[in-house]
Amino acid sequence: MIVGIIGSGQLGYMMIITMKKYPLKFYVLDDNKGPAGYIADKFFTVNQYREFVDSCDFVTFEFEHVDKNTLEYASERGKLRPNIKTIELKRDRSLEKNFLKKNHFPIADYEYADTYKEAFNIAKDFNNAVIKTCKGGYDGKGQFYINPETKYKEENVHGPFVIERFINYDFEASIIAVRDSRGTFEFFSPSYNYNKNGILIYNIAPLKDHKKMVTMAQKLMEKLDYIGVMGIEYYVTDNDVKINEYAPRVHNTGHHTLLGSSISQFEEHIHAVADIPVVKPALFSPSGILNIIGTEIHDKVDDILNLGKSDIYWYHKADIRRKRKMGHINVYGKSVAEVREKIDKLINIVYNGNIDNFI
Amino acid sequence: MIVGIIGSGQLGYMMIITMKKYPLKFYVLDDNKGPAGYIADKFFTVNQYREFVDSCDFVTFEFEHVDKNTLEYASERGKLRPNIKTIELKRDRSLEKNFLKKNHFPIADYEYADTYKEAFNIAKDFNNAVIKTCKGGYDGKGQFYINPETKYKEENVHGPFVIERFINYDFEASIIAVRDSRGTFEFFSPSYNYNKNGILIYNIAPLKDHKKMVTMAQKLMEKLDYIGVMGIEYYVTDNDVKINEYAPRVHNTGHHTLLGSSISQFEEHIHAVADIPVVKPALFSPSGILNIIGTEIHDKVDDILNLGKSDIYWYHKADIRRKRKMGHINVYGKSVAEVREKIDKLINIVYNGNIDNFI
Repeated sequence: MIVGIIGSGQLGYMMIITMKKYPLKFYVLDDNKGPAGYIADKFFTVNQYREFVDSCDFVTFEFEHVDKNTLEYASERGKLRPNIKTIELKRDRSLEKNFLKKNHFPIADYEYADTYKEAFNIAKDFNNAVIKTCKGGYDGKGQFYINPETKYKEENVHGPFVIERFINYDFEASIIAVRDSRGTFEFFSPSYNYNKNGILIYNIAPLKDHKKMVTMAQKLMEKLDYIGVMGIEYYVTDNDVKINEYAPRVHNTGHHTLLGSSISQFEEHIHAVADIPVVKPALFSPSGILNIIGTEIHDKVDDILNLGKSDIYWYHKADIRRKRKMGHINVYGKSVAEVREKIDKLINIVYNGNIDNFI
Repeated sequence: MIVGIIGSGQLGYMMIITMKKYPLKFYVLDDNKGPAGYIADKFFTVNQYREFVDSCDFVTFEFEHVDKNTLEYASERGKLRPNIKTIELKRDRSLEKNFLKKNHFPIADYEYADTYKEAFNIAKDFNNAVIKTCKGGYDGKGQFYINPETKYKEENVHGPFVIERFINYDFEASIIAVRDSRGTFEFFSPSYNYNKNGILIYNIAPLKDHKKMVTMAQKLMEKLDYIGVMGIEYYVTDNDVKINEYAPRVHNTGHHTLLGSSISQFEEHIHAVADIPVVKPALFSPSGILNIIGTEIHDKVDDILNLGKSDIYWYHKADIRRKRKMGHINVYGKSVAEVREKIDKLINIVYNGNIDNFI
């Protein structure tokens, strides 16, 4: 059995290293060879996309922004998992929002605008709002927070835009769920997520009171006839849960499943994609991660591990840049409080007490 | 940091896939390219042993019976972990036994003989005994059980031999322990092991009352100034524990640490070898393994996973032979009893109810 992965970044890398234990081969396609390309059984460049798809039994992707021709050809050949609709909705935020709204999922009020000027005026009507470019933009790029005091200024950014009414949420959360070709649905305990400048800094699972999140996840995956792992981000207020967005792939907020769980999101994803039965995950222990962003940690490995109940994942990226996720640290503990305490200590170790210098 | 592994079998393979997450490179040397050779950052043949050792920061081995020149050269260059004495004692059973006896470790009474005839006579004096070839022999090869009824017959086997007085033990057990260059010692909960024809069929951890085993492991590793993971096998009777033998490497009875533990034996071994701090392992859940010996399981993957709380490790060996370990299945459960029950079911699935056809 040969599984093809479009994209050669850290997410594909972790799919391969965690599933090398199975009798599977992994082929990887990308325009530039990232970490997953070096451990693949075979690497293809984008112009070899037909050969790549033809030689694989199933094809998946590690990221939304991958080669369109390859996705379409894999879809035509009936090999793409999850299906192409799940990724087409992600090419434009307004399509994703329209889909969620049409299907009665709770989301923030939103409007659509072609120009930034128009978007700004709508945002002002909302009083507090976020303007987001419809295309591109992740890890906080292409997002603008508008409040009653914000004065208009030109932004060097391309429309169209969606404008979301700002939700005064208590916290952000997410779920990692999986669905296979038989319709079997399983989920990992949702996590509390702490983001800064639109980038996930750390998260911790489990989260109590996650019934609404699980129900929404299952309904969404069924609506999309989804196969694979999906990450869904939520805004949580006192008694209310709204969907922020979904990612049709393994997700940064699911990396905690690499330690303290009976199976990781990466393994579950390949199970679903390769028609290996998905299994019910057990959370053995509260667990979380701290992202390593824009910095080295080679001289800090001892301090990180001596903290105890911790482990390191390094993504083997060629160079270090501000805002770039270079790796993450897994932590587990007896309680969520213990995990949080360890993460606080890790932030000091990794960022020398000043994370703003790196994100 | 470059870690060299002598030997390219499944044990080296698992060291690499479980530690690819660290900022390390893995070079592998072997006379024939096994599974670890295909995922190594660089593969060397035995005649390139100097280049291999010179280009690595540390060198370890996945198996005792690997190229002697490479071991010796790595030792001369101060790069071999664990040290060469630990493996030299394993080249001849009588050396290992003499070492253990001299250092007052409890072992079975034993004698030494040059010929099989002589060994047989000593065995008869012991009443019940096991004759083992001093050199070679693992997974039950080169072992002869003698009881008062056994008649002498010629055996096509090379001496010398050790003859062990048979211990009427209740069960076999083992510990996986690790020691680093600072002398830090950690251990995984010992396991109950079930062997047949000298081959491990399944095992389950944790085991209660393991104090004596831990004390012996620590003393043995200190005596040997050991760096890395060691597996030690014990004979356990009512109130007594004797050492059967030690393995200066990761061990088949430690594969259960791949599921239900906070860290695996493979990870701990590379931690110790590469001077990454070893960490205290947590056993999140009772866990065990069933070895897959002499058979395929490709058409049984669904049944194995649908059992729940199970996972598969396939070793990617080129061909299937009787008695050959092809992979293993990990199982966890709420209790040792639940793990044992699942293993019973797995034996039926994997071996169609008749394991004797495969081992």
